[in-house]
Amino acid sequence: MSEVDLNADLGEGFGVWRLGDDDALLDLVTSANVACGFHAGDPTIMRRVCATAARQGVAIGAQVSYQDLAGFGRRAIDVEPERLTDEIVYQIAALDGFARLAESAVTYVKPHGALYNRIIDDEVQAAAVVAAVRAFDARLPVLGLPGSTFLRIAAAAGLQVIHEGFADRAYLPDGRLVPRGVPGAVLHEPETIAQRAVRMVVDGEVEAVDGSVVAISAQSICVHGDTPDAVRIVQLVRQKLVDNGINLHRFTSLGNGSPS
Amino acid sequence: MSEVDLNADLGEGFGVWRLGDDDALLDLVTSANVACGFHAGDPTIMRRVCATAARQGVAIGAQVSYQDLAGFGRRAIDVEPERLTDEIVYQIAALDGFARLAESAVTYVKPHGALYNRIIDDEVQAAAVVAAVRAFDARLPVLGLPGSTFLRIAAAAGLQVIHEGFADRAYLPDGRLVPRGVPGAVLHEPETIAQRAVRMVVDGEVEAVDGSVVAISAQSICVHGDTPDAVRIVQLVRQKLVDNGINLHRFTSLGNGSPS
Amino acid sequence: MSEVDLNADLGEGFGVWRLGDDDALLDLVTSANVACGFHAGDPTIMRRVCATAARQGVAIGAQVSYQDLAGFGRRAIDVEPERLTDEIVYQIAALDGFARLAESAVTYVKPHGALYNRIIDDEVQAAAVVAAVRAFDARLPVLGLPGSTFLRIAAAAGLQVIHEGFADRAYLPDGRLVPRGVPGAVLHEPETIAQRAVRMVVDGEVEAVDGSVVAISAQSICVHGDTPDAVRIVQLVRQKLVDNGINLHRFTSLGNGSPS
Amino acid sequence: MSEVDLNADLGEGFGVWRLGDDDALLDLVTSANVACGFHAGDPTIMRRVCATAARQGVAIGAQVSYQDLAGFGRRAIDVEPERLTDEIVYQIAALDGFARLAESAVTYVKPHGALYNRIIDDEVQAAAVVAAVRAFDARLPVLGLPGSTFLRIAAAAGLQVIHEGFADRAYLPDGRLVPRGVPGAVLHEPETIAQRAVRMVVDGEVEAVDGSVVAISAQSICVHGDTPDAVRIVQLVRQKLVDNGINLHRFTSLGNGSPS
Repeated sequence: MSEVDLNADLGEGFGVWRLGDDDALLDLVTSANVACGFHAGDPTIMRRVCATAARQGVAIGAQVSYQDLAGFGRRAIDVEPERLTDEIVYQIAALDGFARLAESAVTYVKPHGALYNRIIDDEVQAAAVVAAVRAFDARLPVLGLPGSTFLRIAAAAGLQVIHEGFADRAYLPDGRLVPRGVPGAVLHEPETIAQRAVRMVVDGEVEAVDGSVVAISAQSICVHGDTPDAVRIVQLVRQKLVDNGINLHRFTSLGNGSPS
Repeated sequence: MSEVDLNADLGEGFGVWRLGDDDALLDLVTSANVACGFHAGDPTIMRRVCATAARQGVAIGAQVSYQDLAGFGRRAIDVEPERLTDEIVYQIAALDGFARLAESAVTYVKPHGALYNRIIDDEVQAAAVVAAVRAFDARLPVLGLPGSTFLRIAAAAGLQVIHEGFADRAYLPDGRLVPRGVPGAVLHEPETIAQRAVRMVVDGEVEAVDGSVVAISAQSICVHGDTPDAVRIVQLVRQKLVDNGINLHRFTSLGNGSPS
Repeated sequence: MSEVDLNADLGEGFGVWRLGDDDALLDLVTSANVACGFHAGDPTIMRRVCATAARQGVAIGAQVSYQDLAGFGRRAIDVEPERLTDEIVYQIAALDGFARLAESAVTYVKPHGALYNRIIDDEVQAAAVVAAVRAFDARLPVLGLPGSTFLRIAAAAGLQVIHEGFADRAYLPDGRLVPRGVPGAVLHEPETIAQRAVRMVVDGEVEAVDGSVVAISAQSICVHGDTPDAVRIVQLVRQKLVDNGINLHRFTSLGNGSPS
Repeated sequence: MSEVDLNADLGEGFGVWRLGDDDALLDLVTSANVACGFHAGDPTIMRRVCATAARQGVAIGAQVSYQDLAGFGRRAIDVEPERLTDEIVYQIAALDGFARLAESAVTYVKPHGALYNRIIDDEVQAAAVVAAVRAFDARLPVLGLPGSTFLRIAAAAGLQVIHEGFADRAYLPDGRLVPRGVPGAVLHEPETIAQRAVRMVVDGEVEAVDGSVVAISAQSICVHGDTPDAVRIVQLVRQKLVDNGINLHRFTSLGNGSPS
């Protein structure tokens, strides 16, 4: 029987501002990528999301980012690698504090936004992120794009890597994502998104924008929480996965076995 | 034989900006109040100070503050107590990450600047700070002004409290500090400062601005690192303490015993 | 015939985060209190709101605040008066740049949130705000609570003052607002809010929480844009005012004459 | 007789942190590139530097930057061009407020740090900076590297451009600067720096790191204020220029004529 993790970005409000429905999504996902205050999130939001996630058995992941609230971490920054390592340690550690308050712990790390995209290719920044995870806790798996420089360096450094698939993002024929600015980069039709999720898990493939089929070994499916119909979409994705006999699993489960 | 801890605020630069000579002071103090990024400090500075402190056996304390880089944490903020608790957990946890990277740990908490002063009297914010320390790790002692609301609430909540004396600050007859804005609030003459430190430890008293003598049970002496002659002053304070047969002791030692 | 200005806080998003429907409200109000980046707002939002306001003949006011994005300017800060003056000059000047890009100009100043409330009584901070407005452009009127220390000092310094009434906030018998944290502080029933607005303008009075009637000389009615039904409420307020023969007028008109 | 402007980055402290000796440098330079709060500077520092510059007849320029206090504007950010334009308008406008308080005005714009370097080649961001200056005041000259994409686009858009030479930076044979990270990128020997300044103005050339001679038409010489011996170096540069019969001239003078 197939199994997969279902992850979403959570805790991405800041102060009075809200983004996405954290509570509704925590009922649906198995892993929560919690913003750590550098692109979104603040101490109160972090505490609340960690408390709810822990109560519901949802895995808590550190969604680490460039330091850029004004740009929501969506602009690449040429930060020096040593500084980047330090910034990521800071974020994981801060979030772990709130996870431990909830008698849980940070169990994985997922880079956010522009950092996620940058380290698909950038060896220096990818190595800086890997160095941060290893320094903080070398047992923490990292979540990233299959085929990325990031996952390659992480695996070589002995970190467990989790292959991620995006149910609601358009793919290029080479397995990369269509950049956010490009029309059609983000899918909105719930049925389509749910079908793509199932196909990723069951068949290990996704259809690219040019109609070609890309092989993808998704151990975790990412769904976005900040689109207008986010909750309804995640509900449908979850249901379709279950209807197709796929077991939903948080990372800590995956972490105990050997992901193929 | 008398013993005392010698603490200083460290890691108070930010980005390109420097404040004080961290390395020189780490050679002299027994406890480092490390800024956590809210009033000063950044991830790189935090990592470096923690690494050096750990290497030299200096205790690492979380110098927690209001979130106010622009004001260096020197302006009181009417932050809601729950939010304040969360902000302090965030800071302790982040610093603890760097301390653990250095195979050490945060071993005490000291509020900074306007927060330190506010909770001398403010029950609500004092309780919020105490709640944060208890939530993060109830074994962590807190450093504060003898007679303050903060230490009273902390002790009532079961936290170990450390009485602090300020060798380079003028005292009011009631045991409080002369506010920073007032002329003469900060002493600059090294010999005077060193003598006051010795008198606090040996005789348990300090002379107030009106000439009266205030009883003070200082378990830790604070010296400031951001004044022009900081290093020379701390050297002299340290030497005079040693010359008077006083044993210099970091908090963890105090923490293991029962401070009198 | 009566006349009144209708103002709302606008441009209070930040980066990806939104708050209120700026475009819809700009169709309804006569004056826009535009956030200047210190409690909310960013350069892009400021440019857009100024452009739309200018196009529609809505007056552009600088909604100046404590520097506190994390707290949305809702926490009082003990900032030094000289620094506060400088911060307010900075905000007015920055906004004026965008107003001038749109061939308009900042035509009034309204303090936001905790600063608005603090200077109802705090002489030092009130004087600091007045000093900033005078330094930037002594012809700019200021908007504030009737009877406040702020308006008293502003008038004494030769600034034009605009008396503000809050249609959707509960009043205390002494003419102050029920603090935001208190249940019932913010009214939500559109019909009630609209009736209070009309009564303020036509009869110069408002009913306080204890049932007593408070005299209030409102030259400008504030409606909030960040409540769930904001647009519908403002529409109703506007319509009721017009239905009652009240002429809606932006500040610049008021500014040219002598407000009664 | 030759003439040249002498510019330095000023007002680059932040809050309690200081960088460089603003007052000493304002006695020596003819143009002050004043930080606007995005990479350094705060409202109080901006006001003070503008007041002193105005009093001493030093031209006030907006030293505009990426929004990055943590990195001092030294890390390139992939900010969207429209947003970049807005951020630069915001900075110029804010600084102009303080310049006008001092009965002066912003009279030129100089990009800072990573932005300065990025727009040597980056057409999109260069155009965004040009758009900001044109929108704010098309009469403001811009300061930049001779041969840069920035100055080419600025000139094509009708802006006056000022060619800048760096007396204390090493040059590559193609007229670019040796990047800051590279050893030898910043010169420290006062006599050498002063001689290079004179040669730039008198002979229109500078010796590159490989010993080749690069033609450079410097209308303004930049000296850095944040190096240890900054004041002494600028004194010597100024004296050597004067000793060689070169007239020191602020931009507004240049701006009124036609720079050759």
